[in-house]
Amino acid sequence: MIKVGIIGLGTVGSSVVNILRENADVISARAGVEIVVKSGVVKNLNKDRTHLGIKISDNVDDILDDEEIDVVVELMGGVEEPFEVVKKALKNGKAVVTANKALLAYHRYELADIAKDIAFEYEASVAGGIPIINALRDGLSANHIESIMGIMNGTCNYMLTKMTNDGVAYDTILKEAQALGYAEADPTFDVGGFDTAHKLLILASIAYGIDAKPEDILIEGIENISRDDIAFAKEFGYVIKLLGIAKKDKNEVELRVHASLIKKDAMIAKIDGVMNAISVVGDKVGETLYYGAGAGGNATASAVVANIIDIARSGKSKPMLGFDKPMEGKLTLKAAGDIESKYYLRINVSDKIGVLARITKIFEENSISIEAVLQRQSCTQSANLLISTHKAYEHDIQNLISSIEKLEFVNSKPVMIRIV
Amino acid sequence: MIKVGIIGLGTVGSSVVNILRENADVISARAGVEIVVKSGVVKNLNKDRTHLGIKISDNVDDILDDEEIDVVVELMGGVEEPFEVVKKALKNGKAVVTANKALLAYHRYELADIAKDIAFEYEASVAGGIPIINALRDGLSANHIESIMGIMNGTCNYMLTKMTNDGVAYDTILKEAQALGYAEADPTFDVGGFDTAHKLLILASIAYGIDAKPEDILIEGIENISRDDIAFAKEFGYVIKLLGIAKKDKNEVELRVHASLIKKDAMIAKIDGVMNAISVVGDKVGETLYYGAGAGGNATASAVVANIIDIARSGKSKPMLGFDKPMEGKLTLKAAGDIESKYYLRINVSDKIGVLARITKIFEENSISIEAVLQRQSCTQSANLLISTHKAYEHDIQNLISSIEKLEFVNSKPVMIRIV
Repeated sequence: MIKVGIIGLGTVGSSVVNILRENADVISARAGVEIVVKSGVVKNLNKDRTHLGIKISDNVDDILDDEEIDVVVELMGGVEEPFEVVKKALKNGKAVVTANKALLAYHRYELADIAKDIAFEYEASVAGGIPIINALRDGLSANHIESIMGIMNGTCNYMLTKMTNDGVAYDTILKEAQALGYAEADPTFDVGGFDTAHKLLILASIAYGIDAKPEDILIEGIENISRDDIAFAKEFGYVIKLLGIAKKDKNEVELRVHASLIKKDAMIAKIDGVMNAISVVGDKVGETLYYGAGAGGNATASAVVANIIDIARSGKSKPMLGFDKPMEGKLTLKAAGDIESKYYLRINVSDKIGVLARITKIFEENSISIEAVLQRQSCTQSANLLISTHKAYEHDIQNLISSIEKLEFVNSKPVMIRIV
Repeated sequence: MIKVGIIGLGTVGSSVVNILRENADVISARAGVEIVVKSGVVKNLNKDRTHLGIKISDNVDDILDDEEIDVVVELMGGVEEPFEVVKKALKNGKAVVTANKALLAYHRYELADIAKDIAFEYEASVAGGIPIINALRDGLSANHIESIMGIMNGTCNYMLTKMTNDGVAYDTILKEAQALGYAEADPTFDVGGFDTAHKLLILASIAYGIDAKPEDILIEGIENISRDDIAFAKEFGYVIKLLGIAKKDKNEVELRVHASLIKKDAMIAKIDGVMNAISVVGDKVGETLYYGAGAGGNATASAVVANIIDIARSGKSKPMLGFDKPMEGKLTLKAAGDIESKYYLRINVSDKIGVLARITKIFEENSISIEAVLQRQSCTQSANLLISTHKAYEHDIQNLISSIEKLEFVNSKPVMIRIV
């Protein structure tokens, strides 16, 4: 029998307890042993949790020091506090399962060092119920990974899908998402791209052995996407998605999170609503894609329980981050400014003679080649210039935007979306 | 160092040799050991294979009795001959990796018994490079699987996609697929649904612990699909795909392979061309979907090599078919006649008065309720009746078709497609 202790009994933690009970028949048949939750730890003991039918305390040491417990499930949230907790669990010889992406975004390499001989699993930390860690670490292990492109935030994808299908404005749909419980009161972590970045960093470690922190990479959100941009996308056969992108270019890896214009017939463009999907291109296997629910108590708990079953079956069976030793000629992180992309810009200008000439001159000065221009009247006194470019460097585009922003007839900071 | 012997050096076997050499850097970093191919066995020694740079013989015992070899890769094809070969490999203490779906469709349970303590892996046997075995056996192990729906034959999907997008007739597109090397000279194994059935049986064992052979289940192909059916599908918002379907209904599991009408906004309906995809619904995780190349030397070899890496990392780490012991209240196979579905029928009739009345009467006699009828002139003397039904039992539909076929004004056997 495998005994589990769960730290944090919110939506996901309660679902873990329920799944282990409701699906005990199939779980014990697959694992070869019974898996039972012995106890849980919560912050606030006042809430009634008798329906869970387990011993509950508010002291993590009741789990960490319990010699009967084999597996500690960490679902408390945060970064430094759970870091201390899982380190102690590992030191006490307990396997650890977590769904905590922030913990991993900051401490995954330290944890991999400590967990050399004991299982530390984290399938639920990226894209909820989709077994993407499993796929990338085991299923695609024969490949050099060429790229990863993921829709890993259901809130953003729900909002962008609604904006595209129903023509709703950003502020309206954000309020709706908040009312439905898809978005937090402070939505920055989701719509600002940070949640996606945490997940991307985890995948990048497995794919490339790249150690980076959120501060090191390009992160932008969807806050500036307007109905004009959606309309432009539609007209030119694109959809707009918030993507986490990892891409190998010789010995460098670029990591970035941003709203992206994607050709509408790409598989990743077909993912709508709150669903998540991750497209992975391997040098041998070509493109594979993984689709499913990226959040929700049961979907996330499904991944947590799968990890527990795996530990029950085989203990520590593979290196935590997929690499047993660093690869020769290790890959390094590409500087954000050196990333190449095609770009779309929306520039709101006062409707005067000579505006387009002045702006296109600045493109030329920054060595950026224009692919297409579309001018749209936005009200009586101003117009939107929608410009797409050929491939250019990120630092050149940033210089271009600074220069354009200063022009007297430009009414606001230009909005830029990268074309993938 | 892990030493590998490969039996069968066709497209996939050669790709395995190449991947292990070309990607040796990332493979040894992930596996923690070097993995090298020591030798290969082929039927015909006359073909030049010096470029592979390995020792080659035409005697399987040169691999099976070689004490240095740790892993035997079986890529010889067939059923009984490879069965004897892999049994001997296992008896000699060697781990086995195979891509052979036919071997598994017939002998997977005997093999699981023999391979209790030694690794026997087969990721490449279903959907080539897509790590679906991995996902189903590990990633979704916490779930009761409610259903599996897979596009697992690239030939059929290519043909149906072309028929849908370009309006090409079945015979024309079959010839084109043969010219492109997507279809065999005798295409029966693919277009008749047998290839899909082999793969479905493998997945059904992992999902449900169901032991069945191809002879036990409903298998139909795409040979009767016409442009009329494609047109009907388009008009009513469906696409036609060849699906392998496994579905749990209380304590029974239905297994079937047939052309299917699917609502066009379902994820599985969006899979075009030679690509494969498998949609799996778990009771906790909801729908997840796995997409990628289902065939091709490199994609298939990617899965074979992933299995070798897994064996190098951890030896035997889980039960071959996902179950360590049978589940209590074991599931049984539902009789094909008891399967319930909605149906579409195309009935070619001579254009006479009273035809529709006679036919609808027969529906009534078989307790089958009609949902919609569409009559289409097919030439001056005959018309196609396109009829969709509400849910009905397979045995009732088969009786209905027999009765209708006998009517004097019915010109050929009615074509039936199940609506999923």
